[in-house]
Amino acid sequence: MTYEPTIWHYLVSMSATAAFAITAVLAVSPRGIDLFGAIVLGIITAIGGGTLRDMMLDVPIFWATDLSYIWVALAASIVAFWADYLFTRKEIYSLLLYLDGFGVAMFAIEGAGKVWGLGFGWPLGPVILGVITAIGGGLIRDLLAGRQTLLMTRELYAIPVLLGCTLFVLILAYFPQYQHVGAVGCAIFIFALRAAAIHWRLRVPDWLAISAKAN
Amino acid sequence: MTYEPTIWHYLVSMSATAAFAITAVLAVSPRGIDLFGAIVLGIITAIGGGTLRDMMLDVPIFWATDLSYIWVALAASIVAFWADYLFTRKEIYSLLLYLDGFGVAMFAIEGAGKVWGLGFGWPLGPVILGVITAIGGGLIRDLLAGRQTLLMTRELYAIPVLLGCTLFVLILAYFPQYQHVGAVGCAIFIFALRAAAIHWRLRVPDWLAISAKAN
Amino acid sequence: MTYEPTIWHYLVSMSATAAFAITAVLAVSPRGIDLFGAIVLGIITAIGGGTLRDMMLDVPIFWATDLSYIWVALAASIVAFWADYLFTRKEIYSLLLYLDGFGVAMFAIEGAGKVWGLGFGWPLGPVILGVITAIGGGLIRDLLAGRQTLLMTRELYAIPVLLGCTLFVLILAYFPQYQHVGAVGCAIFIFALRAAAIHWRLRVPDWLAISAKAN
Repeated sequence: MTYEPTIWHYLVSMSATAAFAITAVLAVSPRGIDLFGAIVLGIITAIGGGTLRDMMLDVPIFWATDLSYIWVALAASIVAFWADYLFTRKEIYSLLLYLDGFGVAMFAIEGAGKVWGLGFGWPLGPVILGVITAIGGGLIRDLLAGRQTLLMTRELYAIPVLLGCTLFVLILAYFPQYQHVGAVGCAIFIFALRAAAIHWRLRVPDWLAISAKAN
Repeated sequence: MTYEPTIWHYLVSMSATAAFAITAVLAVSPRGIDLFGAIVLGIITAIGGGTLRDMMLDVPIFWATDLSYIWVALAASIVAFWADYLFTRKEIYSLLLYLDGFGVAMFAIEGAGKVWGLGFGWPLGPVILGVITAIGGGLIRDLLAGRQTLLMTRELYAIPVLLGCTLFVLILAYFPQYQHVGAVGCAIFIFALRAAAIHWRLRVPDWLAISAKAN
Repeated sequence: MTYEPTIWHYLVSMSATAAFAITAVLAVSPRGIDLFGAIVLGIITAIGGGTLRDMMLDVPIFWATDLSYIWVALAASIVAFWADYLFTRKEIYSLLLYLDGFGVAMFAIEGAGKVWGLGFGWPLGPVILGVITAIGGGLIRDLLAGRQTLLMTRELYAIPVLLGCTLFVLILAYFPQYQHVGAVGCAIFIFALRAAAIHWRLRVPDWLAISAKAN
């Protein structure tokens, strides 16, 4: 399966990249940060997951052949650093969360598709690396910024990605003739779950979680 | 040197993989975690070290060609998540610690042997990557879970691995005719040291450690 | 652009490697550490950045073909562990900070030059990987040791590296005939900025930073 990058696809990718970088800078700036740190964390969040994926696949890293991802993340990080009052305005921050959700959905499915095309670790490989593509950058950011990673929170963030990538791999395996509509559908599925989680502040339900024990 | 995977070897590998995943989930669950986080941390602990090793060696990642490692770690993580009361029963947890010690020994020597076979960074490379194979997954888990890594504790965990891998490399270099018995012997050596540390609660002795200074 | 390693260059590289390892051990030892942890963190700090760079470039890792880097870092870590009272003497620690600054400058420019020579991600790639070469090892050390990474401090450490690598890439792009003198000049530039920051205790200025918000 190959993807023909279209203008539309490109614009969405770049918007998602920018949203990743902006939400990253907004997430870390309350801890105090300088411009350099903001740029590094913004870029890492935007491209870290795909970088990890490509290193594990042993293919050229995606941004080395198209630096637009870096430029966009760089610009978005600088804007977010200087104008953070703009993005913390409630409605705009909310918009960014949704855009971040869109980015997660897009990058996850795109990542899973790339891995599938390379035949890496079939059938689990595309699911695993799809998840890594989507959340890897945020994990590295949280480590470097000293924040709790999302793995230790009850935020409904990674589970939608896991479900969507699994669904996508099932479609690729059993209904390959629907791969294109399946890709779009699974991305929409991830985004819809994530948007619902943002809108209704959904958390991972109790029966899927162990509470922290008092020490 | 090549290893012919035998059924016995395979069963031991899978047991060790499961033990790694289970002890990982048990280690992080007191902090509160959801099923997804438990699975991710369980799998990362089980396969993270070997993944790092293969990325540094620039060879295909071992689990991409044999997903059994992932399936076993996945199943073990789910079981540990749901049935953690089972594994925290004192005798069973103790059994798991020994099984984890066996896994560390196995993966370290197997990793060192693989690196030796590839001629990477002779003679230090096999030692370094053997240690990384054995403890790398646990280090990544601790980072992602916000736990102190074992590098900062006095637990006698990594030093047996280092000694065993060094001994194994010396055998490969000077007594290559004994490579098979040497591999088994060094794995037993690591396991014995680790088991002694578990049984007698041995810590790194004072003369090999600097105490934390009061701030 | 290729570098012909000279004896002088080699000696400087090894001094910088040792300084990286020693300052790493001194940085973590107040938290309490054993010899194994000290060696691991010393070696990782010294070679971690270049290792990350080479993994992203998909080229053989530099220390696998010349283990001197590891031996030097190993020896320096052991010395620093046993004789830390020596290096914490005020004048000697200060000397080490400058030597660390020299190492940062050298490794950054050397890394950027290697990346440029490989044509990776032109023109941003050499800058990004130059910075990673210089500060990546320290970041990994801080994560493993549970310390705040330099990205979250106002220390004037990474910005000189970023400026120097950018300048170097501009020289390589527009004045390739001056590549050798440019390399030396940019390394001196980074070192001078870093030395000034050490000497006058310069911090990232307020207008380039967001203060931590009270929680």
